[in-house]
Amino acid sequence: MEIPSKILENAVHEISKLPGIGRSTALRLALNILSREESEVENLTLALNQLKKNIKLCSSCYNLSDSDLCSICSSNKRNKSVICVVEDIRDVMAIENTNQFNGLYHVLGGKISPIEGIGPNKLKINELIERISRDEVREVIFALSATMEGDTTSYFIFKKIKSENISFSTISRGISVGDDLQYADEITLGKSIINRIPYNQSN
Amino acid sequence: MEIPSKILENAVHEISKLPGIGRSTALRLALNILSREESEVENLTLALNQLKKNIKLCSSCYNLSDSDLCSICSSNKRNKSVICVVEDIRDVMAIENTNQFNGLYHVLGGKISPIEGIGPNKLKINELIERISRDEVREVIFALSATMEGDTTSYFIFKKIKSENISFSTISRGISVGDDLQYADEITLGKSIINRIPYNQSN
Repeated sequence: MEIPSKILENAVHEISKLPGIGRSTALRLALNILSREESEVENLTLALNQLKKNIKLCSSCYNLSDSDLCSICSSNKRNKSVICVVEDIRDVMAIENTNQFNGLYHVLGGKISPIEGIGPNKLKINELIERISRDEVREVIFALSATMEGDTTSYFIFKKIKSENISFSTISRGISVGDDLQYADEITLGKSIINRIPYNQSN
Repeated sequence: MEIPSKILENAVHEISKLPGIGRSTALRLALNILSREESEVENLTLALNQLKKNIKLCSSCYNLSDSDLCSICSSNKRNKSVICVVEDIRDVMAIENTNQFNGLYHVLGGKISPIEGIGPNKLKINELIERISRDEVREVIFALSATMEGDTTSYFIFKKIKSENISFSTISRGISVGDDLQYADEITLGKSIINRIPYNQSN
């Protein structure tokens, strides 16, 4: 669809660079922005600029933070001897949301993926190793994607920091709560049988 | 989901004010913006600011325009004796896209809707009446929504500018091209029989 204004065309072009937003949606968003008050548009653009300029990564765990240490690392209510290793900032939010974990995190910033050209050096793996040798870490939990890349990353890190003083675990894989067995894929179902849990446990 | 950074929280809040974008999508977009180069983010925010500050409405037809008269009104290839009345800027783009109309437009900015508190004075109806009496308009085509509000708006305008020198028409309603008759609603199917078209016409 041809757009009659170059300014609008430019805005649509920039908005449609966002993930999952095509040209029609971008046009709808641009026309919505056009219909707003000028102060509202300024609030939006200011928030986006600040996002890029002022947000930091926590110097310890690489989670998002407004200051040097994030709110989780600087809290004295957390168990600092347990580190949960995740790929992404969103994973921290997802796990925090469960209220089931009281330790600290370490955000790798991705997973090892030769196809996408992501090697161990592009991730915060060395920082994790330093952190474990510096702080008194007793347990490392891998909470990475249940994919080949995720498994490779866990294994790579495990080989690097293997130590008798540290226990390693990975989050369990199995049938999702509420799922029908007949629709589960064979690999997941097979793993859920191998990793079966004693029935008296509160599960 | 709780967001660990106030700056990110603020950005998510602003982005989720856009239509059709919920909190999860806003978070995904914000994290994408965060991962971009600073210059890219500046391009985006500049485009949004310019959109609000620099874009104008055509002084004749109220279509979007970068200058006083829009590209359609200022073109000398268009038939200036025909005006197509539409609700919205997007309708102009949609009709232009068909390459079937060579006249001018008039963008009302909405339709009469007592429920939403939109009366005739909130629309560019007086401007249309002035324009018709000033320019030599021979034909007015209503291309409004096929709803009660659209029909009311057409009728209101028709009553106001009824004149022997001007022919009025409305875009045809009927079965969409490619549609199956059995899935068409009764009112549309009924109208399509009443407004049947002689078969020798090129349709």
